[in-house]
Amino acid sequence: MNIHVIGIGLIGGSMVLDIKALHPEATIYGMDKNEAHLQEAIALGVVEKAATMQDLADADYVIVSVPVDVALQVLPEVLDHIGENTIVFEVGSTKMPICEAVANHPRRRNYIATHPIAGTEFSGPSAAIKGLFQGKTNIICEVEKTTFKLQEKAIELFKELGMRIRYMDPKSHDKHIAYVSHLSHISSFMLGKTVINKEKDEQDIFDMAGSGFESTVRLAKSSPAMWTPIFKQNKKHVVKSLEEYIANLTQFKDLLKSEEYDAIFDEMQSVNKIKAILNGMNTKK
Amino acid sequence: MNIHVIGIGLIGGSMVLDIKALHPEATIYGMDKNEAHLQEAIALGVVEKAATMQDLADADYVIVSVPVDVALQVLPEVLDHIGENTIVFEVGSTKMPICEAVANHPRRRNYIATHPIAGTEFSGPSAAIKGLFQGKTNIICEVEKTTFKLQEKAIELFKELGMRIRYMDPKSHDKHIAYVSHLSHISSFMLGKTVINKEKDEQDIFDMAGSGFESTVRLAKSSPAMWTPIFKQNKKHVVKSLEEYIANLTQFKDLLKSEEYDAIFDEMQSVNKIKAILNGMNTKK
Repeated sequence: MNIHVIGIGLIGGSMVLDIKALHPEATIYGMDKNEAHLQEAIALGVVEKAATMQDLADADYVIVSVPVDVALQVLPEVLDHIGENTIVFEVGSTKMPICEAVANHPRRRNYIATHPIAGTEFSGPSAAIKGLFQGKTNIICEVEKTTFKLQEKAIELFKELGMRIRYMDPKSHDKHIAYVSHLSHISSFMLGKTVINKEKDEQDIFDMAGSGFESTVRLAKSSPAMWTPIFKQNKKHVVKSLEEYIANLTQFKDLLKSEEYDAIFDEMQSVNKIKAILNGMNTKK
Repeated sequence: MNIHVIGIGLIGGSMVLDIKALHPEATIYGMDKNEAHLQEAIALGVVEKAATMQDLADADYVIVSVPVDVALQVLPEVLDHIGENTIVFEVGSTKMPICEAVANHPRRRNYIATHPIAGTEFSGPSAAIKGLFQGKTNIICEVEKTTFKLQEKAIELFKELGMRIRYMDPKSHDKHIAYVSHLSHISSFMLGKTVINKEKDEQDIFDMAGSGFESTVRLAKSSPAMWTPIFKQNKKHVVKSLEEYIANLTQFKDLLKSEEYDAIFDEMQSVNKIKAILNGMNTKK
């Protein structure tokens, strides 16, 4: 079995680590426009051999795990080079633009649009870890546009990696993910910025930070190279989610300024149901 | 050794669990205006015996761990009842109002103002856990107002619990903690609200949420009864921190609307230094 991973970072790297463990007979080929990353990935044993586009004709699986702007260029090129039985998937955090980019490609039926909801705040080949996808959700968009036998081949692999599958149209995906993922990243980045700016005037603020702050600001460690094109591609929905978030914060601030503490209590209490929702997330299979 | 804890929840409960483990000969007495909490704490073995204010004359340590509004009433009453060698500390997230409330109390020198930067999003006696304070920071305010030998007695205990000590005036404490703690809670609550409101119109959004969202929204599980009076007491600094946060979010949104992606990249990259800061937090002693 020939597995190719294009862009060997957190997602692609973690995926091939698990695939190799499940299928020791598979050969893992890698491509990365960053030669240092490619060599690092080989040195770390994440991939076995460097490859080129010309090698894709024999590929069983091709994983495209590059920033979403790069995917718009790379995915059509990958489809140009694959064989008849190759299944290609990419794993980006936006789905509309990529689905549109390959909508009329002659090999469209060899491609399956996915978004594995998994990750950490780290990036690059050294961020690859085993078991990253266990128990996580993989969202598949416009599945009907993929050849049935290749759908099966992809989904079998996702299930072996421990993922639950959800089907969704790309437009709904992009709208919803703005709220539960893209907005969280911006809230975290701007929280980090607010505190960093404050410490310029007031020394040692971070010395007072506890695990609560650390949890809330964790995503501010994320890669700008990965996230800038995501925000660009999902601009409309991200702006809308930000407007709603800012409106909620402003209302809370106004309640505080006008000393409406009962209303503040009620606001927090009504959001407390997030406990049950998050518990549901932790037990979902 | 007689230890009294008043308000047996996450902080007070966790503290006496550790003290009992370190000092098996100590007797742990509890008071809680919620009788069910008191009985639960006894049943869980967090405290050994119920007590009253009249029992405080023999106390070695009194831990006041109640919501910050309740502390304004309870702490003076505690000081009225203690003995000459009793050291009292409370653990609230605001320090100015409480220091002012007891500034002229005849037993002021038996009180030490502290804020252990430790906790989880849970509350009540069942939230008490061992080792909560290990490696955490304890901020002590206006230490010079506590009798020297009672300072020593308190600080020895904090060190036994594994805490590092930082000294600060109450005003600086309240200003800084607005940024690294109080603001994080509001950002998290309002993020939860934004997504909950969105799901009213769009089904199954939470089904798409991953560990990033979960981390960012964790503090939205916190207790409104604990947090409303904190926001009230620290209103001025919390409003200011919120204004700065909203301004940063609005600027980010405007950059996105005007498609200034290089500036968005730079914003995120400059906040990425939070990585090094958080790593520093994890290794601090």
